[in-house]
Amino acid sequence: MDKLEKLTPRSVDQAKWYQEVVLKAELADYSPVRGCMVFRPYGYRIWELIQAEMDKRIKAMGVENAYFPLFIPYSFLQKEASHVEGFAPEVAIVTHGGGKELEEKLVVRPTSETIIYAMFSKWVKSYRDLPMKLNQWCNVVRWEKRTLPFLRTMEFLWQEGHTIHATKEDAEKMVFQALEMYKGFLQDMLAVYPLAGKKTETEKFPGGEYTTTCEILMRDGKALQTGTSHLLSQNFAKSFEITFTDKDGKEASPWMTSWGQTTRMIGAAIMAHGDDKGLVLPPSISPVQVVIVPILRGAAREGFEEYIGKQVTDLLTSQGIRVQVDWSENSPGWKFAQWEMKGVPLRLEIGPREMESGQLSYALRHNGEKSTLDVTNLVVRVNELLEKVQQEVFESHKKFVEASITDVDNYDDFKKVLKEKRGFIRVNYKDSKESANTIKYETKATPRYIEFEGDEGKCFFTGEVGARKTLFARAY
Amino acid sequence: MDKLEKLTPRSVDQAKWYQEVVLKAELADYSPVRGCMVFRPYGYRIWELIQAEMDKRIKAMGVENAYFPLFIPYSFLQKEASHVEGFAPEVAIVTHGGGKELEEKLVVRPTSETIIYAMFSKWVKSYRDLPMKLNQWCNVVRWEKRTLPFLRTMEFLWQEGHTIHATKEDAEKMVFQALEMYKGFLQDMLAVYPLAGKKTETEKFPGGEYTTTCEILMRDGKALQTGTSHLLSQNFAKSFEITFTDKDGKEASPWMTSWGQTTRMIGAAIMAHGDDKGLVLPPSISPVQVVIVPILRGAAREGFEEYIGKQVTDLLTSQGIRVQVDWSENSPGWKFAQWEMKGVPLRLEIGPREMESGQLSYALRHNGEKSTLDVTNLVVRVNELLEKVQQEVFESHKKFVEASITDVDNYDDFKKVLKEKRGFIRVNYKDSKESANTIKYETKATPRYIEFEGDEGKCFFTGEVGARKTLFARAY
Repeated sequence: MDKLEKLTPRSVDQAKWYQEVVLKAELADYSPVRGCMVFRPYGYRIWELIQAEMDKRIKAMGVENAYFPLFIPYSFLQKEASHVEGFAPEVAIVTHGGGKELEEKLVVRPTSETIIYAMFSKWVKSYRDLPMKLNQWCNVVRWEKRTLPFLRTMEFLWQEGHTIHATKEDAEKMVFQALEMYKGFLQDMLAVYPLAGKKTETEKFPGGEYTTTCEILMRDGKALQTGTSHLLSQNFAKSFEITFTDKDGKEASPWMTSWGQTTRMIGAAIMAHGDDKGLVLPPSISPVQVVIVPILRGAAREGFEEYIGKQVTDLLTSQGIRVQVDWSENSPGWKFAQWEMKGVPLRLEIGPREMESGQLSYALRHNGEKSTLDVTNLVVRVNELLEKVQQEVFESHKKFVEASITDVDNYDDFKKVLKEKRGFIRVNYKDSKESANTIKYETKATPRYIEFEGDEGKCFFTGEVGARKTLFARAY
Repeated sequence: MDKLEKLTPRSVDQAKWYQEVVLKAELADYSPVRGCMVFRPYGYRIWELIQAEMDKRIKAMGVENAYFPLFIPYSFLQKEASHVEGFAPEVAIVTHGGGKELEEKLVVRPTSETIIYAMFSKWVKSYRDLPMKLNQWCNVVRWEKRTLPFLRTMEFLWQEGHTIHATKEDAEKMVFQALEMYKGFLQDMLAVYPLAGKKTETEKFPGGEYTTTCEILMRDGKALQTGTSHLLSQNFAKSFEITFTDKDGKEASPWMTSWGQTTRMIGAAIMAHGDDKGLVLPPSISPVQVVIVPILRGAAREGFEEYIGKQVTDLLTSQGIRVQVDWSENSPGWKFAQWEMKGVPLRLEIGPREMESGQLSYALRHNGEKSTLDVTNLVVRVNELLEKVQQEVFESHKKFVEASITDVDNYDDFKKVLKEKRGFIRVNYKDSKESANTIKYETKATPRYIEFEGDEGKCFFTGEVGARKTLFARAY
């Protein structure tokens, strides 16, 4: 009952709240390496749960896992002009190895298109080799100036999918299949309601043809880009001399896609669902789904311990439910606060009284609901409650996102919304570097995405015609 | 039936055989980065199977997964004198990041003791915090001069366990628990028969107190170190200022262990079991356990396709067996050779004749056995066969290892055995840097391990007393 209660309220200072939650829930810690964080077991377990489920969904798309080198020769980065322009300023460079200066500098991968394309050029000869659909789970490094645990770190963990196809049509199908997979995953597992669309030219992947994105709104009204899927330009195929013999025996140029999701997702879950008591985790990604707090009330621990162990914990565990009993010497109140901080969806309180009556007290983390459940029906009731929590956490975020979209048609209203409400602002916008820069400088808002469908109109900023429905927001 | 048959026989040139198998079975490929390999999907899948099972066994020891930064400040490496001496010559160094020269050089982790201990010093305060048992799955980089796919690469994948304990006794228990876990894993999953013991002073972990090791004998009579578990010296605790308050309220110095297994295991499996036709994979780590080759014999594909799909493949898959049907346009003979190259344990041949009779022809990869099985008993029979293969592959390696150990008591016999037979040579040996260097220079053999138990005797090399039973071998 001590420092756990001292969390800065989210409404007072979301940034401070976020950093405190990350530390106090023991998700992560700062490391002595600038911009790099340590994933503590509780935080890493969330990543394992995310990985396990996403890996299944990736494999279900016919994609196979592989692993490519961490180091990329600097010259590979330079082969595609926009690519090197985009990534060169943020790479870490290895200049020495084995006690000697290297002949060619190596880049620590910021993303792996170039090293993978060097291999594609070796493996792809004929249309029979296509499509080739690969994914890797790995660490990447981007030299960020300002970092925040999970959201923006110098090193992060991710999956990067890389596919190569005979036709643009096939490649585009893959781009959207991956995007839909991400959307479904974010909804089902992270219990968030992502919006999706196309990035503007200035925000797309360096060297790509276009980029699609999932954007998740955080509770402070700022958006977080979480999962992008790119159609790559054919420049990459040219730069890496990847060609194949098509069905008619002619030499053809293939199309590539790439798509990635990162440990940033954990940050998204924290900020989309957390409250002043700490984390609120949807059961699907919660390392502990049910915490059991024994309430001894002066009774002896024996007998009682076996009841909690065998009749409750083992039963739930055998059904695949992630349970933890807190036998520590802290007071019940301290334990309640600690497990609330850690966002555990369901708390069971069990004492001699509950053991006798078979009525276990429970509390739900996300809404504070308290009631009892009958132990004879334990597994069914716990599963029902976990499903209910998963659903309600998602619905709450969905409602929040839907209410946060404001349509405006002029710059004054745009600025007014940003001052009073934030969230997504939908406008007709004709993209240009100048407009984007001015708007960003004056309002800190950036175009998050262009809607996939919709008519053209007049730009809210320049009045030009040919503007597309675009959603702006301040972003992480 | 073309180039697949041109594999260099293992008996003629094991090194060449190995490299050909790695490429032809599509386990891996060379990358454009010196010393770094690409894990192709078939090879990476083996790693996934290894990881999934080993991760369970690691967690069963009460160890939790975490993740620490890829980069380590150079000064951390220098805190423990022997540690920096051992690793400094083989590290990759990042000198530039974000377009600027760094104030302090960063090392790409060759192992993570130092960065983890910096965190332990922050997390460990009291005996109540101990033991703390962490593991991470990650990539590490060691600048090797001569590399071989899987066996020795500049970058490799591994797990590294790091634990911290209140007493030396507890730490030693952990060292041996990890070693036993490795031994069991290698036997159960890789179907190899590892020998285990203690490393000599010159071969132990730089900065450690002692190192235990698993050594696997390859079919060419050379040993491969695969899995080490170290008791670290208390120097590390001192260098990183890790202390804790013990039960009596006194300041005490903790004990650390570390232990790791790498992707080298895949190389071990290739070389321990492979033959002149290619890979021989034990079913437990085989990406495909059963390959089905349809033998059309001019019959129509319809009906037949459904039979193979629904009645055979789906049934086996539903029981957790990894099955693949080869519907490619290659000839049956070509397919047989290809799947033999890939080491698939069990091949089923199914044609209209088999479909009618319900008697499916099968062939086992490891011994060439051919027979038929009754489709009405399919799952039971396939499981029996896979278990039989797993067992026989292990027994074969065990027999080979046991027959390979030669006891000698003088240097002449030692050299003779190395010339005629290789394998492990057991001698009484009093370790010294000079002896080890001379023996290595003259015979290429090194002390692989000292037996855990046994009386002392006279050194076979120097005649000194106080010599311990030690196994020598040439090694990868």
